[in-house]
Amino acid sequence: MNLLNNIRVVLVEPIFGGNIGSVCRAMNNNGITDLAIVKPRSTTDWDDARKLSCNAKAQLEARKEFQSLEEAVADCTVVAGTSARTGFYRDTAYSPKEFAPLGLESAKDHKIALVFGREDKGLFNEELALCTHIIQIPSSELYTSLNLSHAVYLCCYEMFSTSGAFQPSEESADEAPTELRERMFDLWRDMMVETEFVHDQKLDHMMMGLRRIFNRGKLTVPDCKILMGLAKQSLWVADQWEKEKENRK
Amino acid sequence: MNLLNNIRVVLVEPIFGGNIGSVCRAMNNNGITDLAIVKPRSTTDWDDARKLSCNAKAQLEARKEFQSLEEAVADCTVVAGTSARTGFYRDTAYSPKEFAPLGLESAKDHKIALVFGREDKGLFNEELALCTHIIQIPSSELYTSLNLSHAVYLCCYEMFSTSGAFQPSEESADEAPTELRERMFDLWRDMMVETEFVHDQKLDHMMMGLRRIFNRGKLTVPDCKILMGLAKQSLWVADQWEKEKENRK
Repeated sequence: MNLLNNIRVVLVEPIFGGNIGSVCRAMNNNGITDLAIVKPRSTTDWDDARKLSCNAKAQLEARKEFQSLEEAVADCTVVAGTSARTGFYRDTAYSPKEFAPLGLESAKDHKIALVFGREDKGLFNEELALCTHIIQIPSSELYTSLNLSHAVYLCCYEMFSTSGAFQPSEESADEAPTELRERMFDLWRDMMVETEFVHDQKLDHMMMGLRRIFNRGKLTVPDCKILMGLAKQSLWVADQWEKEKENRK
Repeated sequence: MNLLNNIRVVLVEPIFGGNIGSVCRAMNNNGITDLAIVKPRSTTDWDDARKLSCNAKAQLEARKEFQSLEEAVADCTVVAGTSARTGFYRDTAYSPKEFAPLGLESAKDHKIALVFGREDKGLFNEELALCTHIIQIPSSELYTSLNLSHAVYLCCYEMFSTSGAFQPSEESADEAPTELRERMFDLWRDMMVETEFVHDQKLDHMMMGLRRIFNRGKLTVPDCKILMGLAKQSLWVADQWEKEKENRK
């Protein structure tokens, strides 16, 4: 079985067709074929894309297109977003080399995603929130902004070169895909609101904290079910409380 | 002393201006500034080069031009040529990662060169003969031909990341000590009981699940405070519910 077949490269709103083509070639050079584009732009120069994809035209033509990142990674367990910036939620970033064995471990049984943002603005916070891991590519402090295809190339290269020597270990419980994980986070958000733990303006900040805590390791399907059960129960209690108050009136 | 200042990137007869510009950016991203071009072509699109160099225009303008590879590397001790092909003289090739410490060792006291051939024909045998080392970039057997700037980027990246110039960002928040962590778990245990989520016999099992989830990464002090606040709030709601029930009697 080829682990590389389970790796999806996701480009979010890429601007330049040339970059998309170069990305296809970079993927092909490293035995990775699954390309998804989120919100493709009407202004993309697809002739440029075809030209720069060289011998990887099949990848380019076989790309999947989605209207949101959430849809593009719905079936993926590990979702690794790339970010040049440091800061809240980005403190615990992995280098591409550190990430490779973690990602390949999951790619043994599941689809995983490597997610790359716009050339000018990268990934937005709500997109990074969907990611289970953050990859930060080491670069000179004097100039940290990488060409999109260079970033994709390096990440694919590390996955490819690590995959050869890689012997994945057995994982007992099944990993949770994005779709299940997001349902869990939705319930936790509801719980925080209904128990009046946070007010609107602090909710997103608090959710980022929770995502960071839960995503430090791979959440399994049973883990998500525990966490969903717990949130549902608190929601139920909050609802009972409301009903009692109503009854008393 | 910065070892990276002693590394020269040499492009032999590059065809596309866009590639030269992308190479400048890739060098800049990795703190490498010395660019030499052997036999520049009259057909090169320098506007494209400038456009793709982005913030590395100074590198592009400061390039040195030579009429032969021999002149371009005359002052270098180690000269590493890149080649996609295997065969005569190429059998003892290094990967970029293997080469990095060897090259950097020489860069302590001397200029060294990383040499890249034409986009279509690579380096000729007489050019490879000038090289002290051959670097071969691992790639998929199905498609070994790399984009020129991708090859330069990877080699520069390995030199940069091996040189120690990069300081990975540290987790800023303080790690939680056992005492705080256990107070947090106690609150979560109380919450599960008071919200009637689990009964006695399942409580320990559920707590083990939660410990496993939370302990996958290092919990910080702020993480524990978020989790404690959340549990306290659910406990408060459960308490309010009890009081409402009492009031109704």
